[in-house]
Amino acid sequence: MTTSNPVFGKDRLDKRGTASHPSKDRSRPHERYLLRRVVAAMGSPCFTVALWDGFLISPEGAAPVGTVRIHNRLALNQLLRQGDIGFGDAFSSGGISVEGDLVALLVAAFSAPEPRGIAGVVKRIQQRKPRANTHDGSRENIHHHYDIGNDFYRLWLDKEMQYTCAYFPEEEMTIEAAQQAKMDHICRKLQLRPGDRVAEAGCGWGGLARHMALNYGATVSSWNVSAEQVEYASERAKAEGYSDRVTYVLDDYRNITGEYDAFVSVGMLEHVGRDNYPELGSVVDRCLTQDGRALVHTIGRNRPRLMNAWVEKRIFPGAYPPTLKEMMDILEPQRFSVLDVENLRLHYAQTLAHWLVRYDEAHDQVQGQFGEDFARAWRLYLAGSQAAFLAGGLQLFQVLFTRERNNDLLSSREHLYR
Amino acid sequence: MTTSNPVFGKDRLDKRGTASHPSKDRSRPHERYLLRRVVAAMGSPCFTVALWDGFLISPEGAAPVGTVRIHNRLALNQLLRQGDIGFGDAFSSGGISVEGDLVALLVAAFSAPEPRGIAGVVKRIQQRKPRANTHDGSRENIHHHYDIGNDFYRLWLDKEMQYTCAYFPEEEMTIEAAQQAKMDHICRKLQLRPGDRVAEAGCGWGGLARHMALNYGATVSSWNVSAEQVEYASERAKAEGYSDRVTYVLDDYRNITGEYDAFVSVGMLEHVGRDNYPELGSVVDRCLTQDGRALVHTIGRNRPRLMNAWVEKRIFPGAYPPTLKEMMDILEPQRFSVLDVENLRLHYAQTLAHWLVRYDEAHDQVQGQFGEDFARAWRLYLAGSQAAFLAGGLQLFQVLFTRERNNDLLSSREHLYR
Repeated sequence: MTTSNPVFGKDRLDKRGTASHPSKDRSRPHERYLLRRVVAAMGSPCFTVALWDGFLISPEGAAPVGTVRIHNRLALNQLLRQGDIGFGDAFSSGGISVEGDLVALLVAAFSAPEPRGIAGVVKRIQQRKPRANTHDGSRENIHHHYDIGNDFYRLWLDKEMQYTCAYFPEEEMTIEAAQQAKMDHICRKLQLRPGDRVAEAGCGWGGLARHMALNYGATVSSWNVSAEQVEYASERAKAEGYSDRVTYVLDDYRNITGEYDAFVSVGMLEHVGRDNYPELGSVVDRCLTQDGRALVHTIGRNRPRLMNAWVEKRIFPGAYPPTLKEMMDILEPQRFSVLDVENLRLHYAQTLAHWLVRYDEAHDQVQGQFGEDFARAWRLYLAGSQAAFLAGGLQLFQVLFTRERNNDLLSSREHLYR
Repeated sequence: MTTSNPVFGKDRLDKRGTASHPSKDRSRPHERYLLRRVVAAMGSPCFTVALWDGFLISPEGAAPVGTVRIHNRLALNQLLRQGDIGFGDAFSSGGISVEGDLVALLVAAFSAPEPRGIAGVVKRIQQRKPRANTHDGSRENIHHHYDIGNDFYRLWLDKEMQYTCAYFPEEEMTIEAAQQAKMDHICRKLQLRPGDRVAEAGCGWGGLARHMALNYGATVSSWNVSAEQVEYASERAKAEGYSDRVTYVLDDYRNITGEYDAFVSVGMLEHVGRDNYPELGSVVDRCLTQDGRALVHTIGRNRPRLMNAWVEKRIFPGAYPPTLKEMMDILEPQRFSVLDVENLRLHYAQTLAHWLVRYDEAHDQVQGQFGEDFARAWRLYLAGSQAAFLAGGLQLFQVLFTRERNNDLLSSREHLYR
């Protein structure tokens, strides 16, 4: 049934470690001791941890939000030896399951106090360096995530295939409306006018470029290293008759050429790599007019920390969410001037909640096409991301900037809210 | 006539270096050579430089925006030896004067390309380290600037004595209206509600605290190390009958005690000193409730650079305008989450334009009370600041932040523009 496994590749999960293969003998004293240490190192979060033989670690005080069930010795060893990666892999293979609301349980995990002492040191060592983003490396990293197949993303994204944080100025909006609102919010921040030339770095399935051309009269050139995405976007532009106004280029953002009135990058910086921020700044400097506006939209952090190790290994190789301070390495060398920063953290939690509902509705199709391990892994990834935005571990920054000498500025941001 | 000279103190300016004491002999070849080097190192800005004997350096190409006239050898030596400090001192004493619009001429100076090579190195060496901000040092530095006398500031500030950037959402606003709009903008960003407790670090003459108490029903405690300002603000609160809702404390912000729903600091960070940013963050962390909001409003830069040496020496000892990146040293150690950054650079240029008109109208009073040198120095400072905001060398950042775990956030910033 499984036609491919883009999450785990050749690094197959061990099928012995699943719920249908529970260990037969009882857990040993040293296993229980180590598990207690791990739970303590997590800050004793507010959920129960249960082993296959009925051994329980319950939270003190408050009622648990759910139960993490470890079905056998293999899964326990994965967790003990590999931390977040082991948990994610064991969850994917079914060796660990969660009873209760997965998002709520992960919020509890992320909200527990930071581990201190030895446990904290161990946790930091477990975090690996993100993979480097050379031109070839970027292509490979992006291929890993985005070329799973358009059909997969179509199952649970909105019809414009927006795979970035939506904007919910009113809470009851649909995901379709909120993604439109996000694109309008960005176009307004960039003060797009008919005839403006826009360079886009990382365009996904081309939705924002489409929106800018069709609703704001802009001419857009979009760079992207994902072949499947560029093909999808280009074909759509041709079929829908605006390929004169939108050009999708299968190439690295570092090769952007031309002169533009606006530069935009939504959800690409996570894949750029810290070392490349000054180069991204040079690209913007090279292509922006004297009074041009630029906007970078990215997942971020309040303090420097690597991406969750399992997500970085299995879902998003090379990904890193920067702090606002780190983002300034894009701007400072070119003396760009920050005009506006907005944090849309809870909007991303809401976006993910919508995606998760659709994803769960499409479960049978995902499982049929990619297998149960893949389906579980992506469920963990979406739920874990929602939990991280809810718990404050992840932020969503929109940074609008311009050249230091540009005095053609609006006197307020009121135009965003008309 | 001169009752005191708070700008120059005992370090009197040499009266031989004034327009009324022009040098009698001709300028010498090496003086002309060095002056040419200095002008070149400034990036050959678009104004004429003239010596007392008629020697001229004219800009190439465009028509000059004005003329810098050096009246004698002493002034020339000040400029050659001490750069910005020499220029400022010679301008103050009358040894240098400017023909044409002073602000436009300074914009031309600030907009010229950066000096390169030896000239650039010399310029950087000329820039001194800002004075340290120990508790005692802060008090002395603040005394230098703010205790010149309330009567002096009353001559040219608005009636609420707001000595920080105003907010001009509509260009034709008066300075009185724009200062009110600034205070409202801040109160809205902080989502002030009746009964909220506010801690203010650095309160000037108490205008914002007054505004928060009288118009938003808040209870405000404001810290300030300027005795004259605290006395003025406290007496006004007593006379106007709201001293139960506003407390002005003559003490350092590092000694703030209590718990507050909001923290605000407008125009103090410039005096805090980079080394003290983490401590300021600790103060906010110590006194803010779990869902409290905090706002820091400060002059800033797009890249790290010391304050203009003359301004730092004569006007604002110890002052330093941080970059957004440097400001993150307040937030990151406490994991504060940036919600909103707004840059009001051109609003400060407009504020200074209003101040300068009023200042010029009050010229006779300033000169009568403080002397001609002081009057000229402050004119240069106000015009130079306006020019720096116009040329992009200075920014004005309002940074709104909260705790990482605070999920009680509004879904848009629309409420700021109702």
